Formats: sequence, structure tokens, C-alpha cells
Amino acid sequence: MNQHILFFEKLLANNCFSDEATRQQYSHDETEDIHRVPACVLKPSTVEEVSQILRYCNENKLPVTPIGARTGLSGGAIPLEQGVALSMERFNKILTIDEKNHQVITEPGVITQALQDTLKEKGLFYPPDPASKGSCFIGGNVSENSGGPKAVKYGVTKDYVLNLEVVLANGEVIWTGANVLKNATGYNLTQLIVGSEGTLGIVTKIVLKLLPHPTESLLLLVPFFSAEQACEAVAAIYQQGIIPSGLEFMERDALVWSQEFTQDYSIKIKENHQAHLLIELDGFNMDLLMSDCESIMTVLERFETDEVLFADSQAQKDKLWNLRRKVAEAVRSRSIYKEEDTVVPRFALPKLLTFIKSLEKDFGFKSVCYGHAGDGNLHVNIIKGDLSNEKWDKELTSVIRRLFEKVVELGGTISGEHGIGLVQKQYMDIAFNSAQLNLMKAIKQVFDPNDILNPGKIFND
Amino acid sequence: MNQHILFFEKLLANNCFSDEATRQQYSHDETEDIHRVPACVLKPSTVEEVSQILRYCNENKLPVTPIGARTGLSGGAIPLEQGVALSMERFNKILTIDEKNHQVITEPGVITQALQDTLKEKGLFYPPDPASKGSCFIGGNVSENSGGPKAVKYGVTKDYVLNLEVVLANGEVIWTGANVLKNATGYNLTQLIVGSEGTLGIVTKIVLKLLPHPTESLLLLVPFFSAEQACEAVAAIYQQGIIPSGLEFMERDALVWSQEFTQDYSIKIKENHQAHLLIELDGFNMDLLMSDCESIMTVLERFETDEVLFADSQAQKDKLWNLRRKVAEAVRSRSIYKEEDTVVPRFALPKLLTFIKSLEKDFGFKSVCYGHAGDGNLHVNIIKGDLSNEKWDKELTSVIRRLFEKVVELGGTISGEHGIGLVQKQYMDIAFNSAQLNLMKAIKQVFDPNDILNPGKIFND
Repeated sequence: MNQHILFFEKLLANNCFSDEATRQQYSHDETEDIHRVPACVLKPSTVEEVSQILRYCNENKLPVTPIGARTGLSGGAIPLEQGVALSMERFNKILTIDEKNHQVITEPGVITQALQDTLKEKGLFYPPDPASKGSCFIGGNVSENSGGPKAVKYGVTKDYVLNLEVVLANGEVIWTGANVLKNATGYNLTQLIVGSEGTLGIVTKIVLKLLPHPTESLLLLVPFFSAEQACEAVAAIYQQGIIPSGLEFMERDALVWSQEFTQDYSIKIKENHQAHLLIELDGFNMDLLMSDCESIMTVLERFETDEVLFADSQAQKDKLWNLRRKVAEAVRSRSIYKEEDTVVPRFALPKLLTFIKSLEKDFGFKSVCYGHAGDGNLHVNIIKGDLSNEKWDKELTSVIRRLFEKVVELGGTISGEHGIGLVQKQYMDIAFNSAQLNLMKAIKQVFDPNDILNPGKIFND
Repeated sequence: MNQHILFFEKLLANNCFSDEATRQQYSHDETEDIHRVPACVLKPSTVEEVSQILRYCNENKLPVTPIGARTGLSGGAIPLEQGVALSMERFNKILTIDEKNHQVITEPGVITQALQDTLKEKGLFYPPDPASKGSCFIGGNVSENSGGPKAVKYGVTKDYVLNLEVVLANGEVIWTGANVLKNATGYNLTQLIVGSEGTLGIVTKIVLKLLPHPTESLLLLVPFFSAEQACEAVAAIYQQGIIPSGLEFMERDALVWSQEFTQDYSIKIKENHQAHLLIELDGFNMDLLMSDCESIMTVLERFETDEVLFADSQAQKDKLWNLRRKVAEAVRSRSIYKEEDTVVPRFALPKLLTFIKSLEKDFGFKSVCYGHAGDGNLHVNIIKGDLSNEKWDKELTSVIRRLFEKVVELGGTISGEHGIGLVQKQYMDIAFNSAQLNLMKAIKQVFDPNDILNPGKIFND
């Protein structure tokens, strides 16, 4: 490895790191408590450098783990097979904001919220907003096909990616498509790269489609006396033909724990509040939003809810969203846990929740559920709490398998927006049969015959 | 071949055709004047039958050309290498309309407009609407990633496909994804199949996402004294943050010829009207549409336009859309022609049009341009008219190459919604370099190692 590091030092000068502290720093992402220390950390800043690194690694069969902001929740950025940790943090420039065509060309190491804020100043809107938007990179969002609360109305990352500059495993640089809204020219390489978790190539430029930024929004928080009823209300709202820009479900403990974590007690959670829906509407005309809001209130009359809270200022909206966004951190701060990123057709959500609660009883653990109910995307946190290490280690995999089998039975799949990465690959056989998996593995082989790009991810062998 | 036909007759009984009339009938689509007669025409109606056909053809290395409604414009359904013409016309059932989840599961042989009409009765909206929607199949739309006028607001076919049942070349049957709105589970096989023009597998079931059907719409026809100004106005409308549900450009002759073809002279085209924009707004609130309409009128004041026609009844709207939809047929009825499906970033449209007009002068031919200007998708019809066969045959390819080189230089690509198929494959080198093409060919090899599926399409060798 020393001779390899000499090569990288010559190429990148002081952007090649092999010291212990840096290697430790890049040994993990936000996925539970997993660490794998890379042999070195490289921080290139040009496509030529990435190309030379990959060509060298491909010739020398060195594993390369692409790394963004390390906010991932499936272990995609953990350098499983050590080798090179390829940090994209110096690809941090927004290259072109094309106001005329409603497009932006950005490097992958730009923080998603920074990109959104810059665009908003010009009246432009890039909707996908994962909970980690304040720290995650847009390149990571592309790798994982990230979603977020606004996905329910505006779609996920893939719906905005028009074209990608990608360095292939052999160092060749390609664009995957063109900067156009319609494209019927050959296979859709762009959408093959989106969500491929760094296993097919290294993204160095991203062309995104943008929308006009909405000027108005409404936010309401609805307490329910039954969690299942909250899930049922989600589907009922859609059946009215209303498409909220956010429709988030939080089980009682999700919100209570987030209150304790953020020390923000401005909302009164009564003892019989079993779940909340956070409902956002956005658009360009407040009258229209008010009218949609009234329709939602009419739908809610069919369910047992407590008094609805209407956010009456931007500050209150920010507070409510902050409580929602901090749930994951709040769970993490309380206990060892395992988060599953289940997704089912929207209407199957109450069935999924009922199943999870029966699973709780069967196995004797506790779960906290929350997430993007409008998409049927429920984050299921299985809490270790007071369980013995032995029971936890022995039974967790069975619990997750039972959960995922149910999800697939309901027409869903095992990850909605977090990706498969390292920690979910053992469950891929539940989502796909061998014919499907063999196709995916053969595609991987086409792009990366020496298996240098993020090896050990997505596939279980 | 006779022994193969015996096998197919045994499998399909009277849905295997080897008579001359049927074979002639399936020898072409709507692509200019190209005919290739298949050895036999098969009309299976179950996924098991398709699976058995493909397994047999794969073992015997028999070419299989999947065929929909034969409305394609790039020759994708022409049985180039003869062999088996696999007509999907008996897959003509809408299987499940899932009103609760806003999804539909359909077979590929359903006519797009029939699907849309059935969904509309339930308040549901499947937006992509190619000009041929009254006769094309939804399966063909998936194969070509079809667009249509509404793509500018609602996206193209790919934006609605959630999941596909596909028979692979070896007869295996897979689903490409799950029936969910968010999916971060493995590679996006769904989007790899969409637009792959029947070269990677045979689609037997399609799961589409749906929207609530808009209840209101406005339609206006704007005459311009300059075609370039009409193109410039398109981008200017978007810069106001307005997203029309249709924004169609028609050069003078496109509309004049369509008038003559349809014998509908209800619109007065003055001598100095060089182009028209057909602008549609849709939504759920007429006040909001009227307000957007006023903004558009303000934008139009910056351009030299004649009096705007507001369609004041559904009948008038239908008439205007019919004039637009019949342009292609009108061109076809007038002359030998070659239609190119160029697409550029929206703002580059005036530059493209100016270039086309200079190309006309250089080569001495006439062109008629029209299309989905809101997407930057311009259909360029090169008209043979009085040109000699010799000049036409000799120079047409050079003209098209010059056109496509310009399109790519402007950031666009060589097909927006018609696909590559047979007639555009010779230009793929303009859109893609060898690294890109080699990846696509290697993917084809993964799915179809014996090259039985629609051989001779997309790639030039």
C-alpha cells in the first residue's frame, strides 16, 4: 500500500491523507456503530484527478469507496474493504445556474440545503429535501436516490437529474445523457447511475431540473387518538384529490422523544395523543391553499382527532419541521436501535403499522415509527432499550426479515430512500429473486469488471 | 422456418400467422416508407406464452421484433431481420385501477387514449399524450419513452412508470421494481427498460402512477409575425414562473397544411402570420388559471403578435388541438419527407430554428417545423417537394448530420420522444462517444446475449 500512497501523494500533493486521525474520521457514516478504516483518504478536486485515481486503482485492483458528507444511513460510504476512501468534499462548487432553462449544473460535494438556498434567491426550486439536508451532499442524494418530506408532491432525487458526468472504473469520463427534459436516445444511463450507491462510477457533475419556487405555504399539525387512524387519514386526504407538499406521520414516542431531545416543548402532547400528522401545502396562491386546507379539515372530521394546530408564523413552521427532522437523532440519543426504511403503497400503511405492532408483541421489543406517510415510506426504528445483548443479536435479523417479507407482500420494497449499502444487502433476496439480482450483478460487471467501486455494497456476495 | 412455425402453431393455435397478407400487414410502422416482411406473426395473450416463445427463440437464435400499434416514427417495430413479429395486441386489458393508491396496472396493448378515458371517469389522470394517442399502445409509449404536449408540465412516460413485468430473452419473467413512489433498492431496472425499444425484454404488465384529473383548462392560440419571436416567447413565459400544461409551436406551413388536410378553416391565418403558439393551462381553480393567463398576456406584449384567440368552448378547444395533432399527417400527405425529433434546452430553441433556416438555404430544401416548444422538442420535417431523387438521396444524410451536430452543440440530443429504432441509429455517434455506446451495448449483451430481441435497432452495428 505504501507504494500506492506514494503515487497518490504525487498526484494530489497534500490532498492524500494516510494519517491515523483522518483515516479514523472517514471510517464511518451515520449508520449505527460501524467503523472500517481505509488505508488512505483522497480528496481530489478535478475530474482529471478522479479519472487518474480510478485508472490507477483499476489497474492495481485497489478498492475505492466514494464518500460524500457521511450522513448515509445504510453504510454506503463505509470503506468496507479498506483501500482508498475517495472523498468528494472538494467538489463543492455550484457551476452554472441556468435561470433561462430552469437548470443547475453543480458539483457533487455541495450541501443540499446550500444549493437550495442559493437557488431560492433566484426564485428557483430544487425540492428533494432529506432530513439531513443541512449537512448531506447533493452527490450523496444522487447516489442514494434520496427523498424527504417534499417527495410526496415533487418526487425524489431521480425525478430532477437530467444528466451526469461520471468517471468510470477504468478512468474514462462520460456524460450519461443530455441537458434536456425529454430524451428517447439510447438506454437511460442517467437513471441507472442514480441510486447506484457509488458502485457503477463516480459522479463529478450533476445537471438538475428546477421549478419555480412556491411563494405560499400552510402547515398544520393534527393529533390523533389512534396511530392506525392517522395512517388511514393519509390515504383519505389523497382520495380528495389534494396533493400536500408534505404529509408526515409521527408515532407518539417519535414526537415526545424529539421534544425531549430538542428541549422544545411548545407543542402540548396530551396523554391520549397516539400519533400526529404534519401536513404542509404549498403553491402560489393562498386562497387555493386555504381551500385545500378546508377540504382536508372536512376529511379529518371522519377521524378521531384532537384540536389541529395551524402554524401562524414562519418561526412556528420552522419549529414544527425541526421537531420532525430531529426524530432520528432523538431516537439515536436514547438507545441502541436499528432503523428500517420500509415503503409500501400509501393505502397499505395502516396494515403495515398494525403488523409492526403485532411483531413487537411477538418478539417483545419496542418500535418507534415515523416518516413520509404520503409516499407510504415509513421509517421503523426497532429499539434495543432494556433488551439483553443476546436477545438483540439473536433475534434482530429475524424481526427485520419478517418485517421486510410483510412489506414486499404489501407491494412495497425494503428501502424507499436510504439505499441498501452495507447493512441491508443481506435482505436483498426478499425484494428480488435470483433472475433480478443476476441482471443487476451483470450490470455491475459491465461498469466495473474488477469490482473496485464500493465493493461489498448492495449485493450479498 | 417451417418447423419453427409448427412449434408456434402448437403453442398458440390460430394466433400464429404465416400467411402473406398478415405478414405484409406487420411489415411496417408509421416510419416513412420502409417494409420488412416477418417470417411469421405471433399474437400471444399470456405472459406464459410470451415466455415460451422467447425461450424457444433464444434457443434457436430466432430474431423477435416486438410490435405494438405500429404508430412508431423511428422504425422500432419494423421486423428488420424478419423472423418472428411478436404482436402484443391481445394484451389489451386494464387489469387493476387502484383508486386508493392512485395507480393502474395495465397490459401493454391497451390504447393510450382508452386508458386515459377510463381513468378520467374515476377522476384519475395519466398525462402523457403522444399525438397518436387515439391509436398507439401504452406499451409502445413505454418502449419509446413517449412524450406529447402535456410533457412540459407533467413529464414523459418514464415519469409515470413505477414497475414493469418483463419477459427476458431466456424466457424468465421478472418485475423490475415495486409498486411504490420511492425506491432505493438496487439498480433502477424499471428506467432501464423504459425507452429501450424492445431490445432488452418484452413488457407484459405496466404499473403507472396517476394524478388527480384537473377540472379546468384554458387554451389560447397566439399568431406571431416572426417564428423566432414565437420561440423566444416560449422561454419568456417560463421565466415568469408559469408552467403551462401545453406550449406548442407551429410554423406557418404546419398550420396551413393542417388546415388544408383537415378542411377546418375556422382559424383565419393572415399572410404575415409566420408562426403560432398554442398555449394550454390546466388546474383545479379557474381564477388561478385566469391570473396565469393574464401574466402570459403581459409577457406577450413584449413580442409582435396579432390578436390572441381564446377557445371559448370545449368544441373549439378540440378543434385547435386537432389542428395541432394532424400536422404530421398533413405533412405526410403532401410530400416525401423526413421527420427529425430534435430536442434542446428550451432557451436554445430560437437558435435552433435560425440554424435550420440557414441550413435550408445552404442545401436548397424546405422544412416545416412544429412541436413541443415548452420542452425544447422541435419536430423538423425536411420536405422533398420538387427536389430530384438524386439530390434527396445524396444530400439528406448530410443535412441531418449537420442538424444533429448543431442540436448536440446546443446541449440537446437527437431524439426527444420518437426513439432511435432503425432510422436514427446511424446518427448515434453524434449523441454518444464510443465509451457511452460500449456501455449501452454491453448492457444489451447482459439482457440478450444471443441478440434475438429487436436486433438491428438503436445501435449501428
